[in-house]
Amino acid sequence: MPHPLKTLIDAADRAITAEDFDAVTEFYADDATLVVRPGLTVAGKPAIRRAFEAIAAHFNHSLKVGQGDMVVLEGADTALALMESTLDWIDKDGAASSVVRRATFVFRKSADGRWLCAIDNSYGTELIGAT
Amino acid sequence: MPHPLKTLIDAADRAITAEDFDAVTEFYADDATLVVRPGLTVAGKPAIRRAFEAIAAHFNHSLKVGQGDMVVLEGADTALALMESTLDWIDKDGAASSVVRRATFVFRKSADGRWLCAIDNSYGTELIGAT
Repeated sequence: MPHPLKTLIDAADRAITAEDFDAVTEFYADDATLVVRPGLTVAGKPAIRRAFEAIAAHFNHSLKVGQGDMVVLEGADTALALMESTLDWIDKDGAASSVVRRATFVFRKSADGRWLCAIDNSYGTELIGAT
Repeated sequence: MPHPLKTLIDAADRAITAEDFDAVTEFYADDATLVVRPGLTVAGKPAIRRAFEAIAAHFNHSLKVGQGDMVVLEGADTALALMESTLDWIDKDGAASSVVRRATFVFRKSADGRWLCAIDNSYGTELIGAT
């Protein structure tokens, strides 16, 4: 059986691909943090929603997000998901583009046992020394 | 001013180098998880303490731990510290050895505002596909 966080991240990826931003923000804690790109971080659901709208426009509304290998570590009601994240999109010239990142996501278990994303950093350890 | 987590991790590194395992375990939440090596994870303070004793022996009681560049992301009372971690030791043949890793540490803010390490993964995203 896949780890519950794999199922959750799969659902979030589908919501991003479908540009269903109401559904996307439901995966985040109220005061979660999203790394939009190295040097640009936003916090809170309204800002995260706006960032995903901007990301969708940036990728010409063609972004497809997928998962590769994934490792989940759990401790003290938190979890660290390490995963290959694949981004596919069609650029402005109509060319198919793709990038693979090694992402790091932190989740918190809420009082009702539900996992919520606290920190979404799709750049993983690439951020070290990048900003 | 350095981030409080940088100060905390510096102190933990000094305690590891000094083999002060009582001090080392104080940095962890009660049910924290430590990645000893890819494929071997332990949880809880007693197991973490035993792992650090084994690590000290493995490195011939000569391990020195240091920090390089560090990025801290905070969200929803958790923090993700991404950092270069340097390990220096003298091997069994008396040769100086060194390794640099890109570590990922998850911290939780406790009710009294203190940061405790929830997940200690000094292997970072190297774990993906490694086990």
